Amino acid sequence: MYHTGSLEFQRAEMATKISHNMKKKEKGQSITERCRGFLTTPVTDISVLEEKKDEMGTKMEMLIMETQAEFYKALEEVDGGTFKVDKWERKEGGGGISCVMQDGNVFEKAGVDVTVLLGCLTEEAAKQMRSGEKVLKGKNGKLPFCAMGVSSVIHPKNPHIPSVHFNYRYFEIKEEDGSKQWWFGGGTDLTPVYIDREDAFLFHNTLKEACDKHHPKYYADFKKWCDRYFYIRHRGETRGIGGIFFDDLDSPNQEEVFNFIKSCTRTVVPCYLPIVKKHLNDSFTQEEKDWQQVRRGRYVEFNLMYDRGIKFGLSMPGCRVLMSLPLTARWEFMHEPGKGSREAEMLDVLRNPKEWV
Amino acid sequence: MYHTGSLEFQRAEMATKISHNMKKKEKGQSITERCRGFLTTPVTDISVLEEKKDEMGTKMEMLIMETQAEFYKALEEVDGGTFKVDKWERKEGGGGISCVMQDGNVFEKAGVDVTVLLGCLTEEAAKQMRSGEKVLKGKNGKLPFCAMGVSSVIHPKNPHIPSVHFNYRYFEIKEEDGSKQWWFGGGTDLTPVYIDREDAFLFHNTLKEACDKHHPKYYADFKKWCDRYFYIRHRGETRGIGGIFFDDLDSPNQEEVFNFIKSCTRTVVPCYLPIVKKHLNDSFTQEEKDWQQVRRGRYVEFNLMYDRGIKFGLSMPGCRVLMSLPLTARWEFMHEPGKGSREAEMLDVLRNPKEWV
Repeated sequence: MYHTGSLEFQRAEMATKISHNMKKKEKGQSITERCRGFLTTPVTDISVLEEKKDEMGTKMEMLIMETQAEFYKALEEVDGGTFKVDKWERKEGGGGISCVMQDGNVFEKAGVDVTVLLGCLTEEAAKQMRSGEKVLKGKNGKLPFCAMGVSSVIHPKNPHIPSVHFNYRYFEIKEEDGSKQWWFGGGTDLTPVYIDREDAFLFHNTLKEACDKHHPKYYADFKKWCDRYFYIRHRGETRGIGGIFFDDLDSPNQEEVFNFIKSCTRTVVPCYLPIVKKHLNDSFTQEEKDWQQVRRGRYVEFNLMYDRGIKFGLSMPGCRVLMSLPLTARWEFMHEPGKGSREAEMLDVLRNPKEWV
Repeated sequence: MYHTGSLEFQRAEMATKISHNMKKKEKGQSITERCRGFLTTPVTDISVLEEKKDEMGTKMEMLIMETQAEFYKALEEVDGGTFKVDKWERKEGGGGISCVMQDGNVFEKAGVDVTVLLGCLTEEAAKQMRSGEKVLKGKNGKLPFCAMGVSSVIHPKNPHIPSVHFNYRYFEIKEEDGSKQWWFGGGTDLTPVYIDREDAFLFHNTLKEACDKHHPKYYADFKKWCDRYFYIRHRGETRGIGGIFFDDLDSPNQEEVFNFIKSCTRTVVPCYLPIVKKHLNDSFTQEEKDWQQVRRGRYVEFNLMYDRGIKFGLSMPGCRVLMSLPLTARWEFMHEPGKGSREAEMLDVLRNPKEWV
């Protein structure tokens, strides 16, 4: 076991505060009241959300807005800079709220986005929708759908602070016979530049605790899925040290899956912010900065070549998915770290994913 | 028309010198003598090349080695730095000669590579092989093939010096019935950060003159093909100001297509070096450097998401195709240049490809 000390204390404190705040809002406040804590008004009109307040679409939209608000506030506090907020509409239906900080004090590029897409699926987009084999039957080949999610990618300046990514999403598709297909997907994963076992333990353990509340196999299964998904095939490396990843989650029932998603979204601050704070003032060398930039290059390779979410986003006109790319990246010719170096240790973990808890 | 003055003079002088040198070697010297001017010995044993000296594979391997030698020498001379040369073998058959300069005086990253691949085609690779629809029949699904080419990507430091890319290649596939399918492909294209009409004219006109010697329609057709191929769909922009691009060229006959390829490879120095020399001492601002880095990000997007050559290379174990990525790149959130700026002028050309000659 690892001695976590004050890191664990910080994490627990953050987790309790967030859980408390969110529960209070959810129980005691009306939709209108809850919206006051958001960055902007939601994508869907508040009156529509009030009217459909028991529908899953509404519950999820409220959750992703709340998650965005919690996460960006925590980041702004630690950075001291401010996010640029941009609410946008998509002429095909829906829109989003981009919340981006570029060249802050701590973060090179940080984005926390909410997206709510409404429309009809094209064939190309439909292919990207589910990782499974289920064939969906549309009316005249068209499938009305709703896709919403919160996603975030944070790239810090200091090479001792890892990048983090999370995305939690809900899909609803109406088939020809009027029946609704729905599923949830998501995950949170960490991309450090150097291995810090304490950080890796804190991150994975926080996710494991959230998973364990819902199913004893979730953490083990979704940890493996994450290592498999964030795999840069042509390099034979994972993107980072993983976390959890899952898709097509539609059992045992909608309410229970939603509760699991809620637990996951509540981990995003306690998973990451204690790690940021721990390394805030770590000094670093030019060599460490260069290695970070090489790893950022790999991040770009994964996102542009393999990420299903980005492929889906690019197939939807008006969607903003390339905000996940780092501000800067580097490609060295035939870069291979020296034996026994901390860079080689990192590569070894990326080539042979480890168990952290 | 444009006044080209000394730029045109330089170009003409370079073109004459190269053509003269190459013709002299080709006519008067044995294979062994010609090999002395190369960076390293060729991928194929000299004795094998001597033995098969009349086969197209040999002629092409000699041409790509000569092209590599001519181009890297011209680059080294202008940069003052030295290339790192690495001859490598591929256990599946063949190999290559990488010639890379990183962080030189003029060039941020410059690569001039020769590759000779021998092996059997996998289904995945076969799909990437031809842009046309021709179906190739293999013995038990396997197709013995030979693919060779010279390719180069040059990314200078100064934002007023454009990046250049060229690739000339020859494929040979043996079908089940023993018949040989062969074709040539290639092209040269320019990616400036700012528009310079004199440069654009010189570059395109040099290519046009080479094309015109072989077919009156080549330049117009291959210029269009180039604009279509180097298109970043999700951005609605071409990668640069184009040049020529063609694939599957197998008529009127092997000798004539080879002569066309020879004319093309002889343009690479006079196409580009006069432009490099012209801007060698141009001063630039941080804003101009940042814009260059944003354009480099687009270069990465094209190469990782759309380039067929890279997809083919990544499907071949041991192949080194990612050397084409720039040393550094940048992704700004929602970057849009101001109206009337030189950056906006560049974007306008990328969104609406122009005729330069």
